[in-house]
Amino acid sequence: MKIFMLGGDGFCGWPTTLKLISDGHDVVIIDNLSRRGLDHEISSGSLTNIASINDRLSAVHKHLGKVTFEFCDISKDYYRLENLFKKYNPDTVVHFAELKSAPYSMLGERERRLTVDSNITATHNVLNAIVEVNKDIHLVHLGTMGVYGYSDDFGKLPEGYLNVKVNSTQRDVDILYPTNPGSVYHMTKSLDQLLFQFYNKNWGLNITDLHQGIVWGVQTEETKIDPLLINRFDYDGLYGTVLNRFVSQSASGNDVTVYGSGGQKRAFIHIQDTVKCIQLAIENRPTDTSRVRIFNQVAEVKSVKNLAEIISKKYGSNINYIENPRKELSENELDVENIGLVSLGFEPTLLNDSLLDDLEFIAHSMKHKIDKNNILNSPKW
Amino acid sequence: MKIFMLGGDGFCGWPTTLKLISDGHDVVIIDNLSRRGLDHEISSGSLTNIASINDRLSAVHKHLGKVTFEFCDISKDYYRLENLFKKYNPDTVVHFAELKSAPYSMLGERERRLTVDSNITATHNVLNAIVEVNKDIHLVHLGTMGVYGYSDDFGKLPEGYLNVKVNSTQRDVDILYPTNPGSVYHMTKSLDQLLFQFYNKNWGLNITDLHQGIVWGVQTEETKIDPLLINRFDYDGLYGTVLNRFVSQSASGNDVTVYGSGGQKRAFIHIQDTVKCIQLAIENRPTDTSRVRIFNQVAEVKSVKNLAEIISKKYGSNINYIENPRKELSENELDVENIGLVSLGFEPTLLNDSLLDDLEFIAHSMKHKIDKNNILNSPKW
Repeated sequence: MKIFMLGGDGFCGWPTTLKLISDGHDVVIIDNLSRRGLDHEISSGSLTNIASINDRLSAVHKHLGKVTFEFCDISKDYYRLENLFKKYNPDTVVHFAELKSAPYSMLGERERRLTVDSNITATHNVLNAIVEVNKDIHLVHLGTMGVYGYSDDFGKLPEGYLNVKVNSTQRDVDILYPTNPGSVYHMTKSLDQLLFQFYNKNWGLNITDLHQGIVWGVQTEETKIDPLLINRFDYDGLYGTVLNRFVSQSASGNDVTVYGSGGQKRAFIHIQDTVKCIQLAIENRPTDTSRVRIFNQVAEVKSVKNLAEIISKKYGSNINYIENPRKELSENELDVENIGLVSLGFEPTLLNDSLLDDLEFIAHSMKHKIDKNNILNSPKW
Repeated sequence: MKIFMLGGDGFCGWPTTLKLISDGHDVVIIDNLSRRGLDHEISSGSLTNIASINDRLSAVHKHLGKVTFEFCDISKDYYRLENLFKKYNPDTVVHFAELKSAPYSMLGERERRLTVDSNITATHNVLNAIVEVNKDIHLVHLGTMGVYGYSDDFGKLPEGYLNVKVNSTQRDVDILYPTNPGSVYHMTKSLDQLLFQFYNKNWGLNITDLHQGIVWGVQTEETKIDPLLINRFDYDGLYGTVLNRFVSQSASGNDVTVYGSGGQKRAFIHIQDTVKCIQLAIENRPTDTSRVRIFNQVAEVKSVKNLAEIISKKYGSNINYIENPRKELSENELDVENIGLVSLGFEPTLLNDSLLDDLEFIAHSMKHKIDKNNILNSPKW
């Protein structure tokens, strides 16, 4: 299958690219390499050493097979993007090319505006290129569980659509889940949903939107093959996800810092599972295009406190409960439907000791690079 | 009250500005004058002669009072916008500064992308300037009834929030109405709603979102005072609203062209009522800022066929039913709640002969300017 990987140089895009090539797909990475630039902006960076894009590509050719790279800022260069669609005529477009951090998006007006402008324009440009070049392309987009919010009113989180009875008419209808995003970043994914809804309705576009949980881990089978293929491992308070931050704190001899009570339950997924799920979505096109297909891409639910306790028990670190910089419920229940991907063959990988050992090995071997202040650099909102 | 009128040079913004000044408010118009440029782009224009911005402002000074104008493209010049907020410190910001045409937004990828990029960035920039400069500012935004869609499932259209029972939990909740926009333009107003929802939730911003029906008419009390103050009257298929198009066709001796069966029921409002409603919203700040205040800004519901028949009967024109260029239900029922503005004192002006005479006078006296092909220039979607 000919696949476009928009954002194929990033944390999720890169290992997904490797897996798809390894399984015989023909992948074109389209990226503006902006994630690399952000390291300078926030004075932090990946604990692992990320090879240049050229070295990455050479290593892919050597170990896995053919890969193509096209530099493009899809939010700024619409006509270049459209021309790439015409040049390669992909069957599937995987859209990872968005700014991805909730804390970054809450730093200030510059970052709020950059996140909205980049993400909405990028997604809308992709939809337009599909309408203009080939409406039969399957678009797979990476969304987030964070669009749902964590209210008890809505029960077990369904996959994108909520069944309700309208009190004025007594009719039962499926509606797009009423989103309640927790940051400007999460809000952009709510906006994306409305773009997908309209482009699906008006042009019949074939779209899968994956609402992903919080990713943890760093390596996948393919990224381990060669140091030049290694994936990012961010540990800072802006780009590091919570479990990766905790392991980094622990490995470098610091306290594990929990926001608030730690009673926030969240859905998690290992990076290896992300890769598998994207592949399942790609290889199983929706047959019903009467609406956008939405899957929850999650493996298991844990509270933040529970994660901290696992780390503390395993490595002997202290847990330090600090003021929560975020506006969120201090505690919530969470139950998540993930039948869509499971029915396609997804077998969730649960948090376990051997996987934590992998993570701890990297954090420990790179601990000289950890700046502990960077772990606590989240803005308050 | 110190009021910013973003988009104060446009069809709704201009007469609202005049009314507010006439009633003693201190108004700063902020506009990039882009509506004037669009006339060249689409080779059409207002039937009435629109004075230059300087002549308009001079006439305001002469007849009504002080007005200030600041040129600014609020979607491109964020820092200029923020500086204007600091310079004038407004109490209320009225946000009309968006591209407003459904057919224009469906012309092609350029217009789709321009509509999304301009409208979302403009709205988001305004919200950011409020957060940065003064979170107590009351934002009044002009939305559209077109976000709701016309499904029977949801009953009488409520004002922004729908009461439902979640079937999985049996809980009754008010949710933001699940929008079903009919064009890219309408979609941008659905996106705006989510921006308002988040900025209200996170920073407690005081926001009124007015979901306006289809505007008809052209003159208000103040625009009649001097020819230099006259309002726009667009008759083309891109910017002319349906009743104004019908009157123009009739006045120039052409058939009235109805899209499809004409069984589409829509909510309408006269431009004079638009002005009154905006004023009511401004002068009655929401006291409860726990959520965005949403009003339906409409006077009455009519079917398109009914409008055509009124015109036909009054002026003897033929009705020509043509293929509907839009994707919409061929017929629908419609009932709309408008208790919010009515409770503040709004007394709807209904379609009547004397108002139609006003409209017909303008269309007839300007009929030499009507290019009948421009009335049929809607894209098909």
